[in-house]
Amino acid sequence: MARISAESDTYGALPRLGAAVRARRKAMVLSQEAMADAAGIDRSHMGKIERGERNVTLLNVMRIAAALGCKPSDLLLDADL
Amino acid sequence: MARISAESDTYGALPRLGAAVRARRKAMVLSQEAMADAAGIDRSHMGKIERGERNVTLLNVMRIAAALGCKPSDLLLDADL
Repeated sequence: MARISAESDTYGALPRLGAAVRARRKAMVLSQEAMADAAGIDRSHMGKIERGERNVTLLNVMRIAAALGCKPSDLLLDADL
Repeated sequence: MARISAESDTYGALPRLGAAVRARRKAMVLSQEAMADAAGIDRSHMGKIERGERNVTLLNVMRIAAALGCKPSDLLLDADL
């Protein structure tokens, strides 16, 4: 969950995953706050994950996928990762 | 990358991902040390990831997948996540 520098994210994986999360969230007409609450993730941290500003952990990907009613692998596939 | 308690890993995601990593590594006849070095991950940390004892981050999943010549989503699919 550490703050990350762009150089360490060679493939732009974090912004791509964040965009995939945002797209599914918006398709569900869910606010970022509601999704964060459903996932049990701090709202401010959730915003940073969606913007690709944090190195999201697998357990948070699990929580986000559960809140979005999809599999964690679906989020990675959406992000072409 | 934090130490995790079993209770926070509701789906056993971390041991499942670790087992998927180990299976692909062994199929490549690669030692854990060689894979850690190829991925640029500390050897001791790599062991903990394989045993599901650490909440692996997306960037480390990216690095591990690159070292194994697969996609990050392949690892999650192998783990049925």
